[in-house]
Amino acid sequence: MSETVGLPFNFPSRGRVILVGAGPGDPGLLTVRAVAALELADVVVHDGLIDARVLDLAPPSAQRISVAKQRARHTLPQEAINALLVAHARDGAVVVRLKGGDPFVFGRGGEEVAAVRSAGLPVEVIPGVSAALGCAAEALLPLTHRNHSSAVSFVAGQCKGLSEQDWSGLAGQGRTLVIYMGVATASEIADKLMADGVAPDMPVAVLERGTLARTRALRTLLADLGAMVAREKVKSPAVIVVGQVVELSDAQDRLARWARVAVEVAA
Amino acid sequence: MSETVGLPFNFPSRGRVILVGAGPGDPGLLTVRAVAALELADVVVHDGLIDARVLDLAPPSAQRISVAKQRARHTLPQEAINALLVAHARDGAVVVRLKGGDPFVFGRGGEEVAAVRSAGLPVEVIPGVSAALGCAAEALLPLTHRNHSSAVSFVAGQCKGLSEQDWSGLAGQGRTLVIYMGVATASEIADKLMADGVAPDMPVAVLERGTLARTRALRTLLADLGAMVAREKVKSPAVIVVGQVVELSDAQDRLARWARVAVEVAA
Repeated sequence: MSETVGLPFNFPSRGRVILVGAGPGDPGLLTVRAVAALELADVVVHDGLIDARVLDLAPPSAQRISVAKQRARHTLPQEAINALLVAHARDGAVVVRLKGGDPFVFGRGGEEVAAVRSAGLPVEVIPGVSAALGCAAEALLPLTHRNHSSAVSFVAGQCKGLSEQDWSGLAGQGRTLVIYMGVATASEIADKLMADGVAPDMPVAVLERGTLARTRALRTLLADLGAMVAREKVKSPAVIVVGQVVELSDAQDRLARWARVAVEVAA
Repeated sequence: MSETVGLPFNFPSRGRVILVGAGPGDPGLLTVRAVAALELADVVVHDGLIDARVLDLAPPSAQRISVAKQRARHTLPQEAINALLVAHARDGAVVVRLKGGDPFVFGRGGEEVAAVRSAGLPVEVIPGVSAALGCAAEALLPLTHRNHSSAVSFVAGQCKGLSEQDWSGLAGQGRTLVIYMGVATASEIADKLMADGVAPDMPVAVLERGTLARTRALRTLLADLGAMVAREKVKSPAVIVVGQVVELSDAQDRLARWARVAVEVAA
């Protein structure tokens, strides 16, 4: 109790924020520490895509707050999320900020950590299995391979700012590129990569709902990526993997016969 | 039991291999599924760097086999490891192949999966928290950041073949590069990156023993990387992070005053 000396009664010093990586979706891919953090939570702030079995790990009394963002409209702007975390921690709560995958890979975790730190409150980050790793494991798709790929890169393919993003050199021979959140822009992504010099016949995989129920691992060639995503009606969440390593995977070949001809012409 | 019909007595069909990512070191960063797989194991094949508390999760009766590799000499060549996994699975064992971090990020997991599959035996992969993610979380170092980095890449910096590896474009403005196993070659890595055009004053962090006891997070500028690693006597395991995001982290600044002058001259 010595740490509360000098603090007014009813103002425990335990207020803090724990950013927790929830992994790619399967609750079994939470880490042991993530489970322990949830069991400690007074408040759980999540993005709405979290499995109910994960949220159930927090005590029944814990407050659950969804700050669901959708691609087109942000339900709660990042600044408001930051303020929410700080306010609850300042009230003395153990705040668990649950984030899909890993908090520091396209999770805006850096901004949340900075906000909590600048409020003078304690913050820690529990890493998680990022979507690329979870989806690749399920599809038996090695992201690096002694003979095929010595570098793996992660980028995000949201609509906003896609054309300004510089991906040059991240995909190609000897390299694996994983694109998060790229389903809606799959055609533009393929065009962008080919404009950067990636071969139209480079293998690509689309790993849809990786580690979740009704998961699919599909593959084609880069020039057919946008068309294949449309033909197969692929929906988010999904990651796109570009590289020779795709050929080693379990992903089902969905290259249409007519598309193969088109790719061969383009190649 | 129907799956064993037709098989000779004493030849259970359960023989299989589970590649399990053991995470960055802290046993609390195992996933729930990794713990479950260990509890099921008849044989655990590991690389010798695994925490005793992790190996203790397997039943006392399980056989534990170390195939420790060292940088200079490989105790057991990869082909022998592949053969070992296949032999035990063929004998009917549930073989857990424990790999530091994630099996598909510089773990040669792809080769082991291929070997087991070509032997006609079942194999699955349980992903893990790769070292980059675990170390970055601990050091509060966001690998991507809306304002500073839209791409993160992983490469490996072993002695062998370092000069032949093409890392061009993976580090620089707006990008984060994480180098695994690069402590022994830190000087050559800095030279290689600067020769590729990365600024000598690009911030770099060295995350030593991330998530383990006696962990250190140190930072300097690229031109001083090799000298800093030598001054601070950094030892493996460690990852090196190159990029502006290093400035947001908790890593302690260890740039020597004389080195700062040298970097400013070079920059």
